[in-house]
Amino acid sequence: MKVGIVGANGYSGIELIRFLLNHRFVTIEVIIANSNSGKNIANLFPHLTNILEEELEQLTIDTVVKRVDLLFFATPSGVSKDWIPQFINRGIKCIDLSGDFRLKEADAYKEWYQFEHSSPSFLQEATYGLVDIFKEKIKNAVLIANPGCYATAILLGLIPCVENNLIDPNTIVIDGKSGVSGAGRKASLATQFSEVNENVKAYKVGKHQHIPEVEQVLSEISGNPINICFTTHLIPMTRGIMCTIYVNRKNRITTKQLLDVYEEYYEASSSIRIRPEGNFPTTKEVYGSNYCDIGLYVDERTNRLTIVSVIDNVVKGAAGQAIQNMNLLNNWDMDEGIRNIPIYP
Amino acid sequence: MKVGIVGANGYSGIELIRFLLNHRFVTIEVIIANSNSGKNIANLFPHLTNILEEELEQLTIDTVVKRVDLLFFATPSGVSKDWIPQFINRGIKCIDLSGDFRLKEADAYKEWYQFEHSSPSFLQEATYGLVDIFKEKIKNAVLIANPGCYATAILLGLIPCVENNLIDPNTIVIDGKSGVSGAGRKASLATQFSEVNENVKAYKVGKHQHIPEVEQVLSEISGNPINICFTTHLIPMTRGIMCTIYVNRKNRITTKQLLDVYEEYYEASSSIRIRPEGNFPTTKEVYGSNYCDIGLYVDERTNRLTIVSVIDNVVKGAAGQAIQNMNLLNNWDMDEGIRNIPIYP
Amino acid sequence: MKVGIVGANGYSGIELIRFLLNHRFVTIEVIIANSNSGKNIANLFPHLTNILEEELEQLTIDTVVKRVDLLFFATPSGVSKDWIPQFINRGIKCIDLSGDFRLKEADAYKEWYQFEHSSPSFLQEATYGLVDIFKEKIKNAVLIANPGCYATAILLGLIPCVENNLIDPNTIVIDGKSGVSGAGRKASLATQFSEVNENVKAYKVGKHQHIPEVEQVLSEISGNPINICFTTHLIPMTRGIMCTIYVNRKNRITTKQLLDVYEEYYEASSSIRIRPEGNFPTTKEVYGSNYCDIGLYVDERTNRLTIVSVIDNVVKGAAGQAIQNMNLLNNWDMDEGIRNIPIYP
Amino acid sequence: MKVGIVGANGYSGIELIRFLLNHRFVTIEVIIANSNSGKNIANLFPHLTNILEEELEQLTIDTVVKRVDLLFFATPSGVSKDWIPQFINRGIKCIDLSGDFRLKEADAYKEWYQFEHSSPSFLQEATYGLVDIFKEKIKNAVLIANPGCYATAILLGLIPCVENNLIDPNTIVIDGKSGVSGAGRKASLATQFSEVNENVKAYKVGKHQHIPEVEQVLSEISGNPINICFTTHLIPMTRGIMCTIYVNRKNRITTKQLLDVYEEYYEASSSIRIRPEGNFPTTKEVYGSNYCDIGLYVDERTNRLTIVSVIDNVVKGAAGQAIQNMNLLNNWDMDEGIRNIPIYP
Repeated sequence: MKVGIVGANGYSGIELIRFLLNHRFVTIEVIIANSNSGKNIANLFPHLTNILEEELEQLTIDTVVKRVDLLFFATPSGVSKDWIPQFINRGIKCIDLSGDFRLKEADAYKEWYQFEHSSPSFLQEATYGLVDIFKEKIKNAVLIANPGCYATAILLGLIPCVENNLIDPNTIVIDGKSGVSGAGRKASLATQFSEVNENVKAYKVGKHQHIPEVEQVLSEISGNPINICFTTHLIPMTRGIMCTIYVNRKNRITTKQLLDVYEEYYEASSSIRIRPEGNFPTTKEVYGSNYCDIGLYVDERTNRLTIVSVIDNVVKGAAGQAIQNMNLLNNWDMDEGIRNIPIYP
Repeated sequence: MKVGIVGANGYSGIELIRFLLNHRFVTIEVIIANSNSGKNIANLFPHLTNILEEELEQLTIDTVVKRVDLLFFATPSGVSKDWIPQFINRGIKCIDLSGDFRLKEADAYKEWYQFEHSSPSFLQEATYGLVDIFKEKIKNAVLIANPGCYATAILLGLIPCVENNLIDPNTIVIDGKSGVSGAGRKASLATQFSEVNENVKAYKVGKHQHIPEVEQVLSEISGNPINICFTTHLIPMTRGIMCTIYVNRKNRITTKQLLDVYEEYYEASSSIRIRPEGNFPTTKEVYGSNYCDIGLYVDERTNRLTIVSVIDNVVKGAAGQAIQNMNLLNNWDMDEGIRNIPIYP
Repeated sequence: MKVGIVGANGYSGIELIRFLLNHRFVTIEVIIANSNSGKNIANLFPHLTNILEEELEQLTIDTVVKRVDLLFFATPSGVSKDWIPQFINRGIKCIDLSGDFRLKEADAYKEWYQFEHSSPSFLQEATYGLVDIFKEKIKNAVLIANPGCYATAILLGLIPCVENNLIDPNTIVIDGKSGVSGAGRKASLATQFSEVNENVKAYKVGKHQHIPEVEQVLSEISGNPINICFTTHLIPMTRGIMCTIYVNRKNRITTKQLLDVYEEYYEASSSIRIRPEGNFPTTKEVYGSNYCDIGLYVDERTNRLTIVSVIDNVVKGAAGQAIQNMNLLNNWDMDEGIRNIPIYP
Repeated sequence: MKVGIVGANGYSGIELIRFLLNHRFVTIEVIIANSNSGKNIANLFPHLTNILEEELEQLTIDTVVKRVDLLFFATPSGVSKDWIPQFINRGIKCIDLSGDFRLKEADAYKEWYQFEHSSPSFLQEATYGLVDIFKEKIKNAVLIANPGCYATAILLGLIPCVENNLIDPNTIVIDGKSGVSGAGRKASLATQFSEVNENVKAYKVGKHQHIPEVEQVLSEISGNPINICFTTHLIPMTRGIMCTIYVNRKNRITTKQLLDVYEEYYEASSSIRIRPEGNFPTTKEVYGSNYCDIGLYVDERTNRLTIVSVIDNVVKGAAGQAIQNMNLLNNWDMDEGIRNIPIYP
């Protein structure tokens, strides 16, 4: 199959390239980056020397349509909404790594993304690509909204509890910690090395754009509206997200019982690993891989669960899950091309 | 005044030296480290070359008693409990940077510190040295239990709310993030660079020894027993602690009102800085200094407060507050010797 | 083919596992680590959860001999010299990632490694496994001394110049910079996070054990004794080695001509990439991969070459090159199993 | 005395503030930053909350002239050359932390700085402010060119050898390593955290603008033209410079003798510390302080010296030495206001 990558010069685009080059059924036919079109990608990213020495191209409908079967959009927020409908209308399936098609309500984009959505009708058509949960729906999709990095870690950590009605949904508190690559590849003062190193910073307190995405999915699964309290922190590391989730238990479930619930729930998901009792995952233990690792603890003193969920934000939180979505669309093995072992140390 | 430092070859000991050398009213008379006695401290810590070229000594009662008026214990957990009572009985005031005298109940040491306390009667005699809260009591103390680093950040962040009855005390969730220096200066596999770098790790989930310390103080202030849910995380940085505290508001207090409460509460504390609305402190903004900076946010969607409290764990969380305690004991200006400006970047 | 790994719980051992699990012609039959025998390796290294859940075993001759065709030794200095001769005598080929069989003179071990070599006769039998240079010799080896990490970066950077007689061999100065993983996985004070972070440190100045290894190879290739001046530095990063090499040119060769010499010299080595003029490799551009990238510059002002050579110390500097050696021994494609693309960022 | 800081919103400007606020004889009268004028500096740099809450101003001649006795320029390259002559002509002494007045030949600015110098006549009037070497000249200066960060580390490391004729000046090779703060405080892709972390990068190979500055001073001291071979490297840390200098000895001087030469040479310089034999300084050992620490080694095998010289680039390499220059201009103790102890860890 032939695919294209729009936004190939961002971190998620580069990571798509790393995985797709090893995918048995796919050829990268076109790599697109308007700001760098005409340049050899290996000049911009010398780690690709001798590996992928192709020219970046401009995004236009006609030329791309004839060449690819599927397009990945790894563009900043607010770009894909204007392009994807045109490609869908021409019969090209699209997987969008940005947030432009994740929310169902067009109005929510004004509040959380600060833009007016140009294609509200397509919001209903989009399928939310959380592969370990919505596998069947995804197989028949044409436009896939690849989940946000934080949203992936949170949802995979919470859904077994919500679906099994084990927690009080009004008590969900989520403390997120992210590496800097999540901010994308662009010159910015706030993500300069000297500003980030030896520093921890809370950002977008109560205002992170993944809040409505998480609430939409949890509410749908629960059948009742669920609100979350979510604060994000920038950590001096490049890759990795950890979400520590605190929530009141409903009944007197134990850590052991909880682990059993999760083990069973994720039995078919080879990229989700539930840690044994007393063991909590670290972000480095999934570095460069598509795993989501989850640790669980019931605090008998306070009747609260602590759920620790980690992913590599650029893989399971972006490019890796996007490829899983592509695999599902094509009825290939869900993990084809993304079975990389985490790099340690 | 002449002082001694026991455990001078640890990170807190070294930091005590940095501040005490600039203190106008104090002379460091003896530096003690049993494992390195006989060695010049500048050989172990070359940053002290030409600054402090003294020999480390063995800890013995008789020799020390004659030479100093006050002793700082910057020793690992479980050491000072066996020594401090002897010095107190000989009329030497002691400031203990370890946890050995922070809890009032001897039994709690078995549960949280895994040791049997050898001097339970002294637990009642010890004064908890949270200087911005218990200033008056401290002035008359003879044995001061210097607060834990996490406990300092948490208590300074929560006490104005608890004392003013603004929150539901059953809903306190605290997510702590600490630099590695908090683990002390010793060879350990878990704190090797290659294990910590590019990594975030939850540790002592639900079991951190600062939990009973925080609960003891909050309960005393509130008049009712308070339990907290607290998880700590190791971050790839050397210095700094951030505690992000989540708690339900009782009434419909706004961010603005909350800020006013904190500003007023800490009016007399020059080392506590309340940030303006929309502004949250980062750990680097207090690096190397004795400040505790606090940011506040009321999430109207979920009726929860988010309190962000940061300190330098080795300064306000250890050596700096210890020197403030010494200043109070002597009726000196509370900030004498520790007015250092944070180092940025 | 069935292989075993001795020292499977070190960083090089772990990295051998990462690559060997993806090698089409090899099965890992036994993983050995005396200090952790009986433990599941995934308990020690949770990143291997669900990937390799095998027990670490004790090293004994008889049990291992029957099970494997080839043994990797990823043990600390001074261990393999006592074991490898016994396995060689039983017909097991060995690839030694330590330095125990790299030097030809037994006496040199006293000076540079501080031990007496127990098997001096085997030093002559060992083949130095610098795969891009000694390919043919390696194919017929039984005991391969896998090159040191620094030695690999230096030799690949210098050999085209030495062999083509382009430089004055008395003027070689090498400044090495290494990530911390090169120090191995053990608790040590010097490699604690708080000691390494925000720090650069020169170590083993003029005394690094890779000096005789480099001099031995360069002297052999040149036909005359060559001495190098080499200083190593510890850098606050986990992986990666950069060697910056300074040397006087013999004739008035230009950067352009020099690049041509290197391009031609390494034409058959797909894991060596020569950068275009004005472009110098960074360590991150080979992260997690088996590449050695080289940048070249002729300083017309001072008649000196600057050669910048980078590798991932755990891959091309250890496990990756070891697998290339195994591939050569078996007449497989030299890059089988180690074609991983560098991870960026 | 009243002083002003132009470029107060850069890293060197901020560091000038940290030291000047503790200087007994100086008041900061005006802080200037055209791009941020009108803003409270504590809003841009919250670590200054409650410490310095002043408005940044625009740079104009008339208003500044009446208010200050001395101006610090902590501006990017190419700015001060257009301003300083006007202030000098109005009787305001200037200390320039940029390179605009360091070179004596106006033509050299075209080659090394890529600009045409607008005030070539002032180049002769400027005094090179390397305080430990040119103390007497500086006392009578009106315009001081504060040395470059790399130049300071190199010159302090080499001058005792050059002045005492101990080395072959044609063999000087310098390998520089710098933290990222040296690149200044501005949004740039190359210094983004994700690009710098876990990475080492050679930059400006053979082209660094401190080369002519170092050669000018060494040539003057030696009486003969001296060329250096110098390559710089970006290291994943915020502060600190290490220069490792390699040079052939002329006679058979030993490490011990060399140490004596340096000890004697720098006897009067309290901010230079010569390390004992076998001991080499690390950058962290001078962190936040004005020290330059030097380690020395004679490699008997290759007849070369290895000189390791470290400074904090923002202190001794910028703001700290600038304040020493101000102290000399005023006949104050050279170390007034900058006696801070290094922060460790």
